[in-house]
Amino acid sequence: MTSYIRPLDFRNGRVDLSHGSGGRAMAQLIDELFARHFANEILAEQADGACFALPAGAGRMVMATDSHVVSPLFFPGGDIGALSVHGTINDVAMMGARPLYLSASFILEEGFPLAELLRIVKSMAQAAREAGVAIVTGDTKVVEAGKGDGVFITTTGIGVMPEGVTLGAGRIAVGDRILVSGMLGDHGVAIMSHRENLTFETTIQSDTAALHGLVATMLAAAPELHALRDPTRGGLATVLNEFAKASGHGMLIHEKAIPVRSEVAAACELLGLDPLYVANEGKLVAFCAAPDADALLAAMRAHPLGRDAAIVGEVIADPHAFVQMQTAFGGRRMVDWLTGEQLPRIC
Amino acid sequence: MTSYIRPLDFRNGRVDLSHGSGGRAMAQLIDELFARHFANEILAEQADGACFALPAGAGRMVMATDSHVVSPLFFPGGDIGALSVHGTINDVAMMGARPLYLSASFILEEGFPLAELLRIVKSMAQAAREAGVAIVTGDTKVVEAGKGDGVFITTTGIGVMPEGVTLGAGRIAVGDRILVSGMLGDHGVAIMSHRENLTFETTIQSDTAALHGLVATMLAAAPELHALRDPTRGGLATVLNEFAKASGHGMLIHEKAIPVRSEVAAACELLGLDPLYVANEGKLVAFCAAPDADALLAAMRAHPLGRDAAIVGEVIADPHAFVQMQTAFGGRRMVDWLTGEQLPRIC
Repeated sequence: MTSYIRPLDFRNGRVDLSHGSGGRAMAQLIDELFARHFANEILAEQADGACFALPAGAGRMVMATDSHVVSPLFFPGGDIGALSVHGTINDVAMMGARPLYLSASFILEEGFPLAELLRIVKSMAQAAREAGVAIVTGDTKVVEAGKGDGVFITTTGIGVMPEGVTLGAGRIAVGDRILVSGMLGDHGVAIMSHRENLTFETTIQSDTAALHGLVATMLAAAPELHALRDPTRGGLATVLNEFAKASGHGMLIHEKAIPVRSEVAAACELLGLDPLYVANEGKLVAFCAAPDADALLAAMRAHPLGRDAAIVGEVIADPHAFVQMQTAFGGRRMVDWLTGEQLPRIC
Repeated sequence: MTSYIRPLDFRNGRVDLSHGSGGRAMAQLIDELFARHFANEILAEQADGACFALPAGAGRMVMATDSHVVSPLFFPGGDIGALSVHGTINDVAMMGARPLYLSASFILEEGFPLAELLRIVKSMAQAAREAGVAIVTGDTKVVEAGKGDGVFITTTGIGVMPEGVTLGAGRIAVGDRILVSGMLGDHGVAIMSHRENLTFETTIQSDTAALHGLVATMLAAAPELHALRDPTRGGLATVLNEFAKASGHGMLIHEKAIPVRSEVAAACELLGLDPLYVANEGKLVAFCAAPDADALLAAMRAHPLGRDAAIVGEVIADPHAFVQMQTAFGGRRMVDWLTGEQLPRIC
C-alpha cells in the first residue's frame, strides 16, 4: 500500500475526474475500495489483468458479459451491485457452465457520492462471496457530471463447461416441456413500483439471485435438459420468441400454469404492464424432453430458488414458429415479440 | 434471421430506448449490426454467452477488462471502436498471454446516430480481424438522452498463457534494464490537439495498435523478460511508479534516451503537458535482465511496432522505491505519481 496524504472520505467524499486519471487518486480508489472489498489472491497481483490456472480437465469454457444501467441504483430487494454480479453469473450458468471468475468495470459520474459507491461495492463483494465467484480484475473510468448517471457497471464472467453438457436452441424438439423456476415479474415490478412511488400492503422485492446452484441441480436431475435462459429484459415472452425463432418450432404456454404473485399481477394492472414481458433477475426458463419433466420439476422445487417452479407449456410443431398462449378462458392468443420500450433501464 | 418490417436506417436513424428493451428492436440491432459485422461461429449461436473449446495444452488463462469513454469518439489515427479492441488485447498481452476472444458491451445514449455506431462497429470488427481475435459475445444497453455520452464500450479479453511464461512486478530485480517500444505521447497529444483545435504541420496521429504480436517476438528473444505494461492513462511515469511500488525497487530513467516526436514535444509545451505522463495506446514498457537487453532491443526494433524502441533506464536499489530521471542537463529529478487529472477521458 502506498501511503496517501489522507484516506478517502467514504462519508462525505465524491468521485472526481482524478479518480479516473491513472494517477495517485485512482490508485487510492483501487486500494481503499476495490482491492479491499473484492480481496482475493488474483486481484492482489494488481496487474493489467487476472492470471489463473484452469481447473483440471477443463475442455470448454464460457464467457458472458452484461452492462448494468439500472435506475434507481438501489431498489427493494437489491441494488446495481448485486444485480451486476447475479446477471452475469446467470448468463454463464444458462450455458450450463460453472462460473469461476468475474471482471468488473465501472463508469462513474463526476460528483457521485463515495458513500453510495462503497455501498454498491460491498453489495457486489457479498453477492460474489455468496456465489463462490471471485472478482479478479477490473477498470474504473470517470466521466464529467451530466455525461453519465451515477454509476454503470459492466461485468464479464467466465466459467467451465462440465464434460458432456450441451444446451441450446438446437436441442429443443417438438414435445419438449417448458418450465419456469418461480414467480414471474418480481424484479421489473419492484423497480417500477419504486420509481412510481406505488405502495402495496407488502413491498414487492426484486428476485435478483445467482442461479448456478439451481442449474447444477437441474443438470444432475435431467439428462435430457435441452436449453436454459433467464427471462430478464423482455421477460418470458421474449425468451420464448427467441427460442422459437432459433429452434424453428412453435411454443404453447398455458396462462393458468404461469406462476405470478397476486401483488405483482395487481401492480401490473395498475402500471399497464403484462407480466409475460416483465424482467426477472433470479428466474430461468428450461426446456426438457417430456419424460424428464417431472423429475426436473421435483429437483427444481427441492432447491430454495426453485420452490415455485412450474411446467408452463410445451414445444409444438409450427412452421411459423409462433408463440401462443392458452388463456384462462380457454381461447388461444399470440404472444408476440415486445415492440417498443416497455421498461427502460430495468437492469 | 427474423424478418423485420424494414431494415435499420443506418443513414439517418438514431438509437432509441427500444434498442435496449430486449424486444424486437434490440434483436434487429443485434442481427443487422453486431452479428453481421463481428460475424463468427461462436457469436452466431446467439446464446447468453460464448462457448468455446480450450486450445490443447492450455493450463493458465488471463482475463482483462477496460471500459472506453474516450472523447471525441473519432480522432486522428483511430476511434473508440479500434481503441476498445486494442486496449483490452494489450492488457491481455502485457500479462504474456496470447489473446483469443473478446466480449463487447455497449452503453448507448438515446439519439446517438446509427451511422456513427455503424462506423464504430466496423472499426472494431476490422481491428479484431487484423489482430486475429474474435468478438464472441456482447450486450447492449440504452440510456436516456443526457444520461450518457454517445457510446461507452466495455471490452473484456481472455487469452492463454504460454507454458513457462511468468511476467510481473515480482520478477523485477536491481540492474534490470527498462525499455520502451517507441515514441511516447502520440495518443494523448492526438486527442488533446483535436479537442483544442490545434494544428501542426503534420497531424499527430494516435498510436492505437494491438501489441500481442510484438510481445510474442519479445518473449522469444529474451528469456529473462521480467515485466511488461502499456503506458496508457498516466503514461510512462505512472507505469514506473506502479512497478517501483510493487517491486520495492527504485527506477532511474535518462531523459535523453526517451523517444518523443518533436511535434509531440512541441504540442506538449503548448498544452502544458509532460510527455512522461501522456497516454499511449500502442506502446509498452518492458523490464529485462541486463544481459538480455541488447537482444531484446534488437528484436523489438525488427518488429513494425517496435522500430523506435529504446533502452531508457534501469532498476536501482532504493529503499524508498522512488522514480528518478537524469535530465538532459545532467541533474536528477523525481518523477512522482500524477496528482490531479491531467487528461480526462483520454481512453
